[in-house]
Amino acid sequence: MTVAYRATVRYLEVDQQGVVFNAWYLAYLDEAMTAYLILRGVPYPALTGSGVDVQLVHTELDWRGAARFGDELAVDVRADALGRTSFRLAFEIRRGDEVIVTARTVYVVVAVDGSGKRELPDFLRAALAES
Amino acid sequence: MTVAYRATVRYLEVDQQGVVFNAWYLAYLDEAMTAYLILRGVPYPALTGSGVDVQLVHTELDWRGAARFGDELAVDVRADALGRTSFRLAFEIRRGDEVIVTARTVYVVVAVDGSGKRELPDFLRAALAES
Amino acid sequence: MTVAYRATVRYLEVDQQGVVFNAWYLAYLDEAMTAYLILRGVPYPALTGSGVDVQLVHTELDWRGAARFGDELAVDVRADALGRTSFRLAFEIRRGDEVIVTARTVYVVVAVDGSGKRELPDFLRAALAES
Amino acid sequence: MTVAYRATVRYLEVDQQGVVFNAWYLAYLDEAMTAYLILRGVPYPALTGSGVDVQLVHTELDWRGAARFGDELAVDVRADALGRTSFRLAFEIRRGDEVIVTARTVYVVVAVDGSGKRELPDFLRAALAES
Repeated sequence: MTVAYRATVRYLEVDQQGVVFNAWYLAYLDEAMTAYLILRGVPYPALTGSGVDVQLVHTELDWRGAARFGDELAVDVRADALGRTSFRLAFEIRRGDEVIVTARTVYVVVAVDGSGKRELPDFLRAALAES
Repeated sequence: MTVAYRATVRYLEVDQQGVVFNAWYLAYLDEAMTAYLILRGVPYPALTGSGVDVQLVHTELDWRGAARFGDELAVDVRADALGRTSFRLAFEIRRGDEVIVTARTVYVVVAVDGSGKRELPDFLRAALAES
Repeated sequence: MTVAYRATVRYLEVDQQGVVFNAWYLAYLDEAMTAYLILRGVPYPALTGSGVDVQLVHTELDWRGAARFGDELAVDVRADALGRTSFRLAFEIRRGDEVIVTARTVYVVVAVDGSGKRELPDFLRAALAES
Repeated sequence: MTVAYRATVRYLEVDQQGVVFNAWYLAYLDEAMTAYLILRGVPYPALTGSGVDVQLVHTELDWRGAARFGDELAVDVRADALGRTSFRLAFEIRRGDEVIVTARTVYVVVAVDGSGKRELPDFLRAALAES
């Protein structure tokens, strides 16, 4: 896995039980996904410039722990499965060595002109296959 | 399913693609879960007053569409599976008849004193079984 | 003042001190502003359709109390001052009769084509003057 | 002024006009305030350990520009005015040399036991006076 994103938990992300409210983990995943594509050589404009975009269609998260105000989190990412028109990323959100959340997200590749699903372009497939 | 929660999409929930950012759906689910338990006769203080609490351990979401600024959303909920120490809720987030997101969340029942998992109390099991 | 917006405090809006985190009040104000313009007969598309838009340039908030999870809040709005190219709105965020926050925001009217400030169009001035 | 906090704009913070939604600036200020007190030698637990806490009672923001997705922001802070039971902080939120937002916040010092306002403790007054 690749460390794609780091975040320090903000005060507003913590709820009255003193732990990060569940929705914020999706925000961390989103930033990690963008950063991961950049690390793999596919910044978002390169994607859309080639005529395709990606659309989140599925995400699942498993909580093993809880993060607290000021915790420094790291998000590891790897491409988990490459389909014809979709791919899946696997994530681990860690505080040091402790995994707080594992997650998987599935994206489908769509045409930017709104005409529907597209096959993964070769450069994206190659970039994800490396990881 | 029971309509447990209604929300009108706020401007801040919409991203630069003009659709609700994915993390906000978890906020809708959280409110719907609390409201659903109230509708089933188990307000949150009744739960903790009996010595147990619930902890979110898993959630998965599937997107079929996208909500936009000002959309009026309804969240339907039903108990999907009752285990010994955990239960699963199923959700549909709708705009009118159109289902935008389906989701499932798993909660474990834990002791409020921090001593770990507990069996579903009878009143909670009965409340969820009705639905 | 006109009651322009109502919101029930969400769990995620409450911080570890058990009160609504300050930033969420700006979200309530934003929804109240849009709703207020609709109540005054100026839905946002009518504004932009006439060639102008509004831009938030100043906001100030005074806290007199704190809202908590589940509180039902109402936001009252009135036009406070009408300038040549700007206007100010005054807000009260209440829980029942108790005012939690008072706020004032200043908007400038700008051309949608990016060419800068514009005078308040007559229909907007008339709509705000009524209140 | 002291650079107290840095943040990279997240995708979710950007609204459908492509700019950071106003409420998120309050989140930046809040993190900057905490970080500033640490830099001045007053971590939050030192404050509450001495029997007092701080309460936000007023904030005002002036927008001079707009931040966008991925922008790297810095928040400068200085103590602006020291009263008997309150103090004011001044903030500049910058992207490089460009100031996007200026802000001022007023905090009152209160007893942690809920008994009301307190004078600024000497160590806090000294810490803020240095800046």
